Amino acid sequence: MGTRIQFINPFGTDDYNALIAETMTPYLRPGTVLDVTNTTDCPVNIDYYYNKHLVETVVLEQVMRAEADGYDAVIVGCCYDPGVRVARELVDIPVVGPLEATMLMAPYYGHDYVLVTDHHKAVPYLRDLVRLYGGTGCRHVSCIDWWVVDMIRDTEGVARDALAATRRVMEEKGAEAVILACTIISASTEKWLRDSGAARELTILNPNTMALKMAESLADLKAQGLYNISRRGFYAKPEQHDAAEFAAVRARYGRLPGRRGAA
Amino acid sequence: MGTRIQFINPFGTDDYNALIAETMTPYLRPGTVLDVTNTTDCPVNIDYYYNKHLVETVVLEQVMRAEADGYDAVIVGCCYDPGVRVARELVDIPVVGPLEATMLMAPYYGHDYVLVTDHHKAVPYLRDLVRLYGGTGCRHVSCIDWWVVDMIRDTEGVARDALAATRRVMEEKGAEAVILACTIISASTEKWLRDSGAARELTILNPNTMALKMAESLADLKAQGLYNISRRGFYAKPEQHDAAEFAAVRARYGRLPGRRGAA
Amino acid sequence: MGTRIQFINPFGTDDYNALIAETMTPYLRPGTVLDVTNTTDCPVNIDYYYNKHLVETVVLEQVMRAEADGYDAVIVGCCYDPGVRVARELVDIPVVGPLEATMLMAPYYGHDYVLVTDHHKAVPYLRDLVRLYGGTGCRHVSCIDWWVVDMIRDTEGVARDALAATRRVMEEKGAEAVILACTIISASTEKWLRDSGAARELTILNPNTMALKMAESLADLKAQGLYNISRRGFYAKPEQHDAAEFAAVRARYGRLPGRRGAA
Amino acid sequence: MGTRIQFINPFGTDDYNALIAETMTPYLRPGTVLDVTNTTDCPVNIDYYYNKHLVETVVLEQVMRAEADGYDAVIVGCCYDPGVRVARELVDIPVVGPLEATMLMAPYYGHDYVLVTDHHKAVPYLRDLVRLYGGTGCRHVSCIDWWVVDMIRDTEGVARDALAATRRVMEEKGAEAVILACTIISASTEKWLRDSGAARELTILNPNTMALKMAESLADLKAQGLYNISRRGFYAKPEQHDAAEFAAVRARYGRLPGRRGAA
Amino acid sequence: MGTRIQFINPFGTDDYNALIAETMTPYLRPGTVLDVTNTTDCPVNIDYYYNKHLVETVVLEQVMRAEADGYDAVIVGCCYDPGVRVARELVDIPVVGPLEATMLMAPYYGHDYVLVTDHHKAVPYLRDLVRLYGGTGCRHVSCIDWWVVDMIRDTEGVARDALAATRRVMEEKGAEAVILACTIISASTEKWLRDSGAARELTILNPNTMALKMAESLADLKAQGLYNISRRGFYAKPEQHDAAEFAAVRARYGRLPGRRGAA
Amino acid sequence: MGTRIQFINPFGTDDYNALIAETMTPYLRPGTVLDVTNTTDCPVNIDYYYNKHLVETVVLEQVMRAEADGYDAVIVGCCYDPGVRVARELVDIPVVGPLEATMLMAPYYGHDYVLVTDHHKAVPYLRDLVRLYGGTGCRHVSCIDWWVVDMIRDTEGVARDALAATRRVMEEKGAEAVILACTIISASTEKWLRDSGAARELTILNPNTMALKMAESLADLKAQGLYNISRRGFYAKPEQHDAAEFAAVRARYGRLPGRRGAA
Repeated sequence: MGTRIQFINPFGTDDYNALIAETMTPYLRPGTVLDVTNTTDCPVNIDYYYNKHLVETVVLEQVMRAEADGYDAVIVGCCYDPGVRVARELVDIPVVGPLEATMLMAPYYGHDYVLVTDHHKAVPYLRDLVRLYGGTGCRHVSCIDWWVVDMIRDTEGVARDALAATRRVMEEKGAEAVILACTIISASTEKWLRDSGAARELTILNPNTMALKMAESLADLKAQGLYNISRRGFYAKPEQHDAAEFAAVRARYGRLPGRRGAA
Repeated sequence: MGTRIQFINPFGTDDYNALIAETMTPYLRPGTVLDVTNTTDCPVNIDYYYNKHLVETVVLEQVMRAEADGYDAVIVGCCYDPGVRVARELVDIPVVGPLEATMLMAPYYGHDYVLVTDHHKAVPYLRDLVRLYGGTGCRHVSCIDWWVVDMIRDTEGVARDALAATRRVMEEKGAEAVILACTIISASTEKWLRDSGAARELTILNPNTMALKMAESLADLKAQGLYNISRRGFYAKPEQHDAAEFAAVRARYGRLPGRRGAA
Repeated sequence: MGTRIQFINPFGTDDYNALIAETMTPYLRPGTVLDVTNTTDCPVNIDYYYNKHLVETVVLEQVMRAEADGYDAVIVGCCYDPGVRVARELVDIPVVGPLEATMLMAPYYGHDYVLVTDHHKAVPYLRDLVRLYGGTGCRHVSCIDWWVVDMIRDTEGVARDALAATRRVMEEKGAEAVILACTIISASTEKWLRDSGAARELTILNPNTMALKMAESLADLKAQGLYNISRRGFYAKPEQHDAAEFAAVRARYGRLPGRRGAA
Repeated sequence: MGTRIQFINPFGTDDYNALIAETMTPYLRPGTVLDVTNTTDCPVNIDYYYNKHLVETVVLEQVMRAEADGYDAVIVGCCYDPGVRVARELVDIPVVGPLEATMLMAPYYGHDYVLVTDHHKAVPYLRDLVRLYGGTGCRHVSCIDWWVVDMIRDTEGVARDALAATRRVMEEKGAEAVILACTIISASTEKWLRDSGAARELTILNPNTMALKMAESLADLKAQGLYNISRRGFYAKPEQHDAAEFAAVRARYGRLPGRRGAA
Repeated sequence: MGTRIQFINPFGTDDYNALIAETMTPYLRPGTVLDVTNTTDCPVNIDYYYNKHLVETVVLEQVMRAEADGYDAVIVGCCYDPGVRVARELVDIPVVGPLEATMLMAPYYGHDYVLVTDHHKAVPYLRDLVRLYGGTGCRHVSCIDWWVVDMIRDTEGVARDALAATRRVMEEKGAEAVILACTIISASTEKWLRDSGAARELTILNPNTMALKMAESLADLKAQGLYNISRRGFYAKPEQHDAAEFAAVRARYGRLPGRRGAA
Repeated sequence: MGTRIQFINPFGTDDYNALIAETMTPYLRPGTVLDVTNTTDCPVNIDYYYNKHLVETVVLEQVMRAEADGYDAVIVGCCYDPGVRVARELVDIPVVGPLEATMLMAPYYGHDYVLVTDHHKAVPYLRDLVRLYGGTGCRHVSCIDWWVVDMIRDTEGVARDALAATRRVMEEKGAEAVILACTIISASTEKWLRDSGAARELTILNPNTMALKMAESLADLKAQGLYNISRRGFYAKPEQHDAAEFAAVRARYGRLPGRRGAA
């Protein structure tokens, strides 16, 4: 039967799906099925926190539907890890954020690392995530000042800038690895590395791949009866408190794909 | 003219407005007008993060409208500080979260403090806020395990439990002050203290009052041309990047009070 | 009646009073009276810790006298926050240090900030204060290597150097705001900004203004019966333990303005 | 072909192999082969750091041999993660320590957790590992004061004490999950849970299982050409500097299983 | 010739000199001469920060005189380490604070430790010192609620309470050693241990002794030309900037023993 | 009789003994006898962690023999502090690591410091030690990229590079002192400073000398009955648990100098 994982591109458009699918497929383990989807009826980028917030509402609904549809795990495809913690409150399948997964895998790749993300607005936000996630190995957060809507038109330019920034920041900070902390930067760079056949000299962590590996592991644990996420506090489910209220809230206020357009 | 401050009860009902207004009014400085409002067309509590997320969408819209309506500052009335950071991205008037404001004022009241909040689910969330806000003086986060919907029916019971927990936790942790880190707990306790005329022996910080004082100060600074919040990164505004896109996103996806019900 | 605030220039001379008064007066709220005073019969600068220590003795006496004279709050006008914590042990009116007040207000202005202070000797001292105050948003402490006695003779030069350092350090550290962590640097820069009418592009926090706003808020709280600073530990008052001993100690060893000169 | 993983029981005896094999086998993913081995010709426990140091020499040799024998990944089966970081210097296959792997997976199971380990001597050592690994979610390190040699004779007693300690410490610390930070405690508890069919109410993380999942993931990444651990610093290999010297050192001083006994 | 060390009891009375001398003398190394002195013409305790501040002025003068008198090192005998950092600005001989010295030596005695100090007011102050000194090994700060003036009348009672608190707090916090963080508590306990001949089962660190050992070491380094404390920043000397001003300030405002009484 | 200290060069050769002896001897206090020895029958450098691990086994044996031979303290002469913590488990005499000792003494020399070590591989390792030791004063870890085997052939080149790096890094980081965090770098620099008679302008801390001073102090404390290192946890001795087992383990597996060669 295999493991079914849904990767939700939160950007409100299917523009990025092919790039993600193309660069992740080579790394599926046998038996894993990866469906790359995207949010709909929401802003088409999440660069600003307002957009991010609106998009997250759709992400939450989509994660709940993924569980209902029998997916074994979900990846929310953006290094803001948008909606990930809230989504864990709602479903019993694992919900994986690319940044968190990559920071967790990073110790296997080197003593410390830097983050290179997209634009300057993301830098302080990622610094906060690093603080919350406990990234003792993180030595710096930097950016290349691209917006995602531009990246998809010039993935090679993105790769070139990302690699240049990586070399410079690793040198300046004496770091051993880099996390390309934007799913589109990392996909663009992965694509260029594969297409060009360039040697992978630097230790570059691709959050999409790391999220995939983490999702596969957690899906295994779930199937084996071992993904009993604690419901004692942070991840207590609304149903535990009042299932009817939760159902009513979701029915009335949950942003359903396609529904708003119909209204 | 005076300073106009809007206190938004985010709980999706007007049940709490009178309690808040009653317990804050005595502490307005001359010339301050406080309007206590509430979110509408959204869940009626924010105990769970899903509800919180949905409510925040309404908070964001309401903060933008408050600015348009000429308010000088806004307080989002819950110690999750819901939507506060996102709202700062959107408006040029100060947006105050009660927990943050109180943690910032706390050093004037003692060397360190404990937090006492409502229910066990809030405890880890507040621990994360403490980490992000940099609360070196915070020695513990505790709760009294009440839900807001129950509190409003028995404010005296809330006050009694809050004071008992405060005494116990301050003793155990050797702390000098307490932050009653729930706007309804603190309002209930304030009400009881005023009604009973009990001596204020313990150093109890009421986030509603602290948020009010902070809002008054920031409103002054704004009026004096000194509230030039940095728009270089974290709080860069969507309009700076693409004003038309922002307007379209807001028009299409912003949750407007009353609008959803009409759809 | 209004709020009476005393701003004590601790530098042992009245040379700085006019500059401070001139640059703070525009930011008084209606009803606030600000008296700018200075320490006397003590060293004329506090650049070195020895001088600072001697000056603080006078500050402590002056704060106690301010309370006796009916002031509602006191600001000790130097970013070393000299004597501030000790003074809180002694009086029941709020005692505000400019650095602490500004660090507490900084989150409303940006995600993080740098400090730019006067000379290299102050840098490690401010780093320690940042650690004690819990400045998670502080990304760097830098200086312009001026001494206060020189500043007063060339406030424009100070402003020029402060602005240049601000631009450079904010860029290097990717910070969103700056705290000009010296009351005379910030007054000089404020004066230049006002006199020149230059646009306030950068988010520059002036500790004098922030201390003023904090003092006004705390004075309100005091007047409203809400400034019950904890006397359980750090700020326990000597009178609580032995009022007669305290009176005797103060009478015999407190440095009184003018008294030593008479001896 | 599948993934071949070697789990090295470092305790210098095969006494624990059956327990480990029995409790891990149910969690292998299809295609994974797990070989449970043990160190030989070394002390029969690693309770004291001297023993641990001697055992680690054998672990290092055994990890190198595992790579030569074609294993895809190695787990060093003790929550001291003995020799793990040094071993990564020596081989290109992933080397997994159970404690680190579990701390990295823990955020998927709850907001925070406590550690419960074997005896009091291990507690400060684990506190140091927590500091190095960056465990912001770790709220406490506790122990049940058993030694491994006693555990194997009474695995049920171990399980009972571990579960009791877990309940008590989670309650006291308000934690959401527990890591049973000793491979034999966790195996004993797992055995008891399976044998008794008791419900898994508490969120108990078993380091053996987590190490297995991490090893499977990293073995995948290795097979896919993506396990390019950084050799720029911490994990630079001796061969990079002087391959002949390394070979000579290993031949002369590496502790080989069986060899010393022969001398 | 030997090493001449002055131990300054800062308490403004000679009441404590005999106890200190009696309990330190057994630990002098051959050739060390220890002179136990006290501050004069200042408050007779430093329990409150006001008193502490006034006393420190005398300490500073006394340290300068000790250097002039040819002492090789000075210990300021109180665990507030009163005036120590300021004094280092003024003299080229080592100035040792008992708490700092003991925290620095503590790693040789155990993995971690607790502090037990005199009264509740000292607890938050010591927490701040721990933060500034970087005490990663410090697990708790506790007190026995005695004042020094009472201690000298009942040193045995102090010892009894200190040992009881030590046992309790070490147990509760799982700590391996204790620092009796008050020079009079530690002297009282040392006296009782010697007089009673009780076994020294617990690892109790006596700040007086640790300060002595540190002073001896630093005096050696000084004599060997190796105590070149950095004068680049924090410890830059006033004379470096303006020697005449410093001399004038000291002459006019330095509190000289006996001089004030004469005025 | 005096104090007998053994300084163990762990590098597996006597090549470095003369340099160490020559540069430490001037700083012995009267009565101290320093024996500089080296490990034997082990790798001749500890640049890589594998070598370091093998060498440490010999260090442990040699420390136990030093205690048996009546030494009063031991210094393990490398800034990795190799085997130091394990050795403390085994003997009752003080075991001093040069890096730890120097970090502990550093506060007497300046507010903060940088580390300059040998090669890039050591940098992340020292960062970890700084984290474990609690180095709040450490502002940076840097290196000069020399290997010890090259240093001994050109000690003047080492000194030149170390001093250049020191000047550069202190300037860049605004630090007040430097720890030359490699025993051979610091010995080479000390030799050059002595031979050239150059002024010691910079505050350079030599770990060999600091370790010597710490060893002398701890040896005094030991002789005075005050070195009762806690045996409650981290440093509990194997003999406490099972003396016969420990003796058997040591006899069978402890690497003895010369013994392996004989095998």
